[in-house]
Amino acid sequence: MKRPVFYVSDRTGITAEVLGHGLLTQFDGQNFEHTMIPFVDTPEKAEQALRKINLAADQSECRPLVFSTMVNVKERNIVARCNGLFIDLFETFLGRLEQELHTAAATVIGRAHGVGEDHTYKTRIDAINFALKNDDGANTAGYSDADIILLGVSRSGKTPTCLYLALQYGIMAANYPLTSDDFDGTRLPDAVNPFRTRLFGLTIDPLRLHNIREERLAESKYASLKQCQSEIRAAEHIFQAENIPYLDTSNISIEEITTTILHLTGLERRLH
Amino acid sequence: MKRPVFYVSDRTGITAEVLGHGLLTQFDGQNFEHTMIPFVDTPEKAEQALRKINLAADQSECRPLVFSTMVNVKERNIVARCNGLFIDLFETFLGRLEQELHTAAATVIGRAHGVGEDHTYKTRIDAINFALKNDDGANTAGYSDADIILLGVSRSGKTPTCLYLALQYGIMAANYPLTSDDFDGTRLPDAVNPFRTRLFGLTIDPLRLHNIREERLAESKYASLKQCQSEIRAAEHIFQAENIPYLDTSNISIEEITTTILHLTGLERRLH
Repeated sequence: MKRPVFYVSDRTGITAEVLGHGLLTQFDGQNFEHTMIPFVDTPEKAEQALRKINLAADQSECRPLVFSTMVNVKERNIVARCNGLFIDLFETFLGRLEQELHTAAATVIGRAHGVGEDHTYKTRIDAINFALKNDDGANTAGYSDADIILLGVSRSGKTPTCLYLALQYGIMAANYPLTSDDFDGTRLPDAVNPFRTRLFGLTIDPLRLHNIREERLAESKYASLKQCQSEIRAAEHIFQAENIPYLDTSNISIEEITTTILHLTGLERRLH
Repeated sequence: MKRPVFYVSDRTGITAEVLGHGLLTQFDGQNFEHTMIPFVDTPEKAEQALRKINLAADQSECRPLVFSTMVNVKERNIVARCNGLFIDLFETFLGRLEQELHTAAATVIGRAHGVGEDHTYKTRIDAINFALKNDDGANTAGYSDADIILLGVSRSGKTPTCLYLALQYGIMAANYPLTSDDFDGTRLPDAVNPFRTRLFGLTIDPLRLHNIREERLAESKYASLKQCQSEIRAAEHIFQAENIPYLDTSNISIEEITTTILHLTGLERRLH
């Protein structure tokens, strides 16, 4: 039996979902059925949301959980009447913040997750285009404009990490793939050597790399465990010999990789 | 005078930041200086975080705000002694959830933002690779595997939207750029016509498009207001004539675009 969980918001509901999800991951072994109800910004939509939640309450043996980040009092009060455990993420804290900041909270929706301010938008788009253009060593001319250049063997997680850095933080992230050409010595490849203060290495467990590569090119030399072991050994050798900070991406999510990189390098985000 | 704001967590701190940021956007006109303190998972790191917050408290005229999602009680109690307003995002709600779920919350850190579970990781990476491969009409052979295909003129927001759908939701999103070749009639381009149930259009205010294109190719015909107006008119004509749902991306963020698309199409996320 799955317990229904609703994330209700007058905007995207992303905030409600992130916190609600974070809380629920502390309850292992329970099954949840997640439903987003975004853009609840009129009394009619609030009544609709209410009916949807109450229907789930009727059909389920478990009382629904409802995480809300509704700002408008009128709509919030409608949804709050539901036959679920109503957890108001905003209201709970806004009072304390108002007291501390000596000012009333705006009851204007849509401030969270910005209204696409021009500057923010441009920063993000520029960073995404930069990541796409400077991906995988195809173009090294842009490296002098990079905030960070990730190094690692094929399929060590460079591209998703660069894209996440760009999308979430507006960081200009390039990446350079280490290949057998780079493994002759222990020196840094010429293309990245001038930018050594901006380099960050990614490594990965060879067996995991082998599994990932098998998905892509089964039974190839490229995917063989032996090849993966040898490439990872050589890559880590370079990172150590050249004093490049690096991180094992094997068991962590993209969020954890990027947060750790920012934490270790002190790299400034361009978006907050 | 900026008020210091800290996001303290025994993991990435992303949950603390999303909710804290969402709350603070309700307080317009106040200045905040944001600092992340992630990975506070030992008493020593907690003492370090405490010192950092107290230093900011000494140096600022405003009391710091501290948003915490610490799970470990020992470390949390250390940071909670700080000279700031300590807002415990998890503890506040975990009690109510424990009661409702008839089970104790795990005091195990690092459940939020997953430990890179294999399935999740693969879904995300596959979706990112799909978006990269099926970007901008370069390759239309993958369209039959797409969950959604975005249509729009150059610089209407297709690529960032596809990448966000891939990274956050594991959705296989392709995009096809509408160009003057497609504007002869009002019919859908042949490349996308077989997939009409999966199409979604993006449009944008011509003046905004003009500004964006000017950044890229100043004083070109491509960027001229006249060209932008004519392309947008033709694109919207196709969307309307062919009954393709579409969205104006001019004043909304990437989060809002993607959430709205999911909401309007009912497209199922592959990641939760």
